[in-house]
Amino acid sequence: MAEIIVMKAVNAENELHAQKVRELVDHFGVLLINLLSSPGSGKTTLLEATLREWRGKFRMGAIEGDLFTDEDARRLERFGIQVVQLNTQGSCHLTANMIEKALEKLDLKALDFLFIENVGNLVCPASFNLGEHKRVTLLSVTEGQDKIKKYPKAFFTADLLLVSKIDLLHLTEVKLENLKEDFFRVNPKGGFLPLSAKTGDGMPQWLGFLEAWKKELL
Amino acid sequence: MAEIIVMKAVNAENELHAQKVRELVDHFGVLLINLLSSPGSGKTTLLEATLREWRGKFRMGAIEGDLFTDEDARRLERFGIQVVQLNTQGSCHLTANMIEKALEKLDLKALDFLFIENVGNLVCPASFNLGEHKRVTLLSVTEGQDKIKKYPKAFFTADLLLVSKIDLLHLTEVKLENLKEDFFRVNPKGGFLPLSAKTGDGMPQWLGFLEAWKKELL
Repeated sequence: MAEIIVMKAVNAENELHAQKVRELVDHFGVLLINLLSSPGSGKTTLLEATLREWRGKFRMGAIEGDLFTDEDARRLERFGIQVVQLNTQGSCHLTANMIEKALEKLDLKALDFLFIENVGNLVCPASFNLGEHKRVTLLSVTEGQDKIKKYPKAFFTADLLLVSKIDLLHLTEVKLENLKEDFFRVNPKGGFLPLSAKTGDGMPQWLGFLEAWKKELL
Repeated sequence: MAEIIVMKAVNAENELHAQKVRELVDHFGVLLINLLSSPGSGKTTLLEATLREWRGKFRMGAIEGDLFTDEDARRLERFGIQVVQLNTQGSCHLTANMIEKALEKLDLKALDFLFIENVGNLVCPASFNLGEHKRVTLLSVTEGQDKIKKYPKAFFTADLLLVSKIDLLHLTEVKLENLKEDFFRVNPKGGFLPLSAKTGDGMPQWLGFLEAWKKELL
């Protein structure tokens, strides 16, 4: 179909911008994380929990991607961090070009970690490299058992799968073992971490991943 | 951006196919419903509950849209209904052209209701008319309070918003009154129905909507 051909053309240009993004964050030693998930899987809540845990320890910033609104940026600004809100005005994913523009508005030398919260969507964002060092996909247990099979690209391109909202696990028919099996089938090298930002379960391991990745960078 | 222009061109062709779809279902008196939501909001579970309630009363069929897999089709085939699985192979929405092809595989004169389960995605499917009589958007309470503001098109183009998984409402921070307010702000004419396919709460009203729409058609 015509759209697919166009997406490829856009992607080639996207790769050039992704390279520039990567050069910039590398230059300043900022670890860049791209967070991907369906709408409402808990990306912003994870960031809030991360900011709470690491306040005063690391300097963190965020780029918030949404079709419309600046609600997420305002949620994170309360933590006194650097935040840029990107509105895609209808487009279902961020592009590296958008990130490049957002970086101009950030003081990179004052950051250790920079999180990109992509548009809530399990399809389109998976095809766009934003120049990130690591890609983290969230999947809430309330989304059901079958999502890894149905939307494989968001999962096989991830460095880490965070299975979120595990405080609700007992209310669903989801089995963590089965999710793990589905995940490792498409992505044998990825990390797999069940987590609840609400109860704090899995948070130390999540922060551990971030610190380990940051060390790789140095 | 280039992609948006292309999407419009595709949409013009899509409208022609949507017209053909509509002519066909009208000819056979089949009510065509397009179900839209994020991944894991409970579209298939709603269809299962609907099929259970109406077995023997109405003749129902389904067109299942997924990037990959035929899991949903297999879930519904157990009810002995006509099902077609469409795999978009990576595309984030169904098109009217795909529906037209699916209709060729269905015996329309043996159907009262035909449900299209769109690809789980709150962005792309909202822009594609599939020739449906009614569009129903699902939003699970586990997706949080802000989704209507963030993804308005899926909501302002809906004839009915089903707020799903309300059996989990007390575990979330979501307030139904606020969802309702957000919804009516973008869509003052749409229907608003909280529902749990698990407990059956709201199911009689959902079936009521379907019967009323079917009567409009005759």
